[in-house]
Amino acid sequence: MRNIKLTLEYDGTNYCGWQIQSHRVTKPPRQKPSIQETVEKALRKIFREKIKITGAGRTDAGVHAFAQVANFKTKSGLPLSRVQQGLNAALPDDIVVTSAQQVGVDFHSRFRARSKLYRYAILNRQHPGAFLHKRAYFFRYPLDIGLMRRESKALLGRHDFSSFQSSGTRKRNAVKTIKKITFKRHGDLVYIDIEGDGFLYNMARNIVGTLIEIGRGHFKKGRLKKILSGRDRRLAGPTAAAKGLYLVKVGY
Amino acid sequence: MRNIKLTLEYDGTNYCGWQIQSHRVTKPPRQKPSIQETVEKALRKIFREKIKITGAGRTDAGVHAFAQVANFKTKSGLPLSRVQQGLNAALPDDIVVTSAQQVGVDFHSRFRARSKLYRYAILNRQHPGAFLHKRAYFFRYPLDIGLMRRESKALLGRHDFSSFQSSGTRKRNAVKTIKKITFKRHGDLVYIDIEGDGFLYNMARNIVGTLIEIGRGHFKKGRLKKILSGRDRRLAGPTAAAKGLYLVKVGY
Repeated sequence: MRNIKLTLEYDGTNYCGWQIQSHRVTKPPRQKPSIQETVEKALRKIFREKIKITGAGRTDAGVHAFAQVANFKTKSGLPLSRVQQGLNAALPDDIVVTSAQQVGVDFHSRFRARSKLYRYAILNRQHPGAFLHKRAYFFRYPLDIGLMRRESKALLGRHDFSSFQSSGTRKRNAVKTIKKITFKRHGDLVYIDIEGDGFLYNMARNIVGTLIEIGRGHFKKGRLKKILSGRDRRLAGPTAAAKGLYLVKVGY
Repeated sequence: MRNIKLTLEYDGTNYCGWQIQSHRVTKPPRQKPSIQETVEKALRKIFREKIKITGAGRTDAGVHAFAQVANFKTKSGLPLSRVQQGLNAALPDDIVVTSAQQVGVDFHSRFRARSKLYRYAILNRQHPGAFLHKRAYFFRYPLDIGLMRRESKALLGRHDFSSFQSSGTRKRNAVKTIKKITFKRHGDLVYIDIEGDGFLYNMARNIVGTLIEIGRGHFKKGRLKKILSGRDRRLAGPTAAAKGLYLVKVGY
């Protein structure tokens, strides 16, 4: 049995997320497919067998990826270059396999992930962007990036991130480690990169939503520290829009 | 009568071009609207009168713009900031007015244009791009950018560009001046910027298609010079795909 690791780039705009959200008990009328089922359908075409893939991160509807990682097992001896080419031919244009590698049988894209890097893109100018309306969050007002950067230091290290966990879900263990938060401005675009050993549901977007409140002057100095220690989702800022979020890297 | 100059950013993917192609004698079943009619429809909403706009460059179906220029006349005294905001609210997300200015009554966006800068984007890597499939031309094989740059010097200055004119159309005067051609590589992306006093129909795309033939090794050293002096469209390379082309700037 071979274990194959895929690296995937995708534009999440036309998908309901990596997988069909499991917390939906009643099924709403399906409109958009999931990334996972789209890749599985392409794999089935190539291998002529039903293949299940596991993704490292369950990206939400509208969230993008530069390098999502997924793996699957197969008995087929098809060369890796043919797997990649075949998938790219079978997949829609907005999902691309950027690499296919054979890995040890015990490799698991989710359980073995040691870190994840997310990027959030904000278009920060007077008028919206014709090219970015599905790929960045448009914010018209000035953002004090220096203040956001200084305040964000409070999040670094090992903390209970309950305040940034989606209110709908509740995990027993909300303790995570954030290794790095960086801010960059390229012209009208502001990029916030957050690297951590793991992320709670909506954690990256809730952190960004809170940082925007800081940057626009709604949350005063020291507030972020209090939000974190309060362990209460209601203290933090709103969830930033999915379309600005990118899964950039999964570390093993 | 006020004369208002608009600067427009647009993703051309979902449009049939700046205007409905006039050389279509028999009307095919309409699928995509033109940029021009979409902007005129938005103007009509705001001014409650029928307004005709003139664009600086008649970009083709699928061609994009960072700064197309268009102007229109109106008797309305509506403040310019309201014009811009109103248009951005009325326009679809893939067309954005980045500025609105009042100009002299004799300003004409096309006739007064003294130069145009076009950018062509090539995604030059092994696998296609999930984010760029409608916004760059994907080319898998190595490109010798140094050779393309050296050969492109033959195009600089004032020449008869008949060899790069679309074979369907024929202009009496094919003499144009190319002021600048630059090549840049940013990671997997190659940008070719071409600035000229004017462009014949498909000229920018025909030049790029020829440069790609040079870069991939199909056209030998000195061939471009011969193509230019031959004044025959059949000598040059193919027309590069529309989706890689951007109207970047119109100079007055």
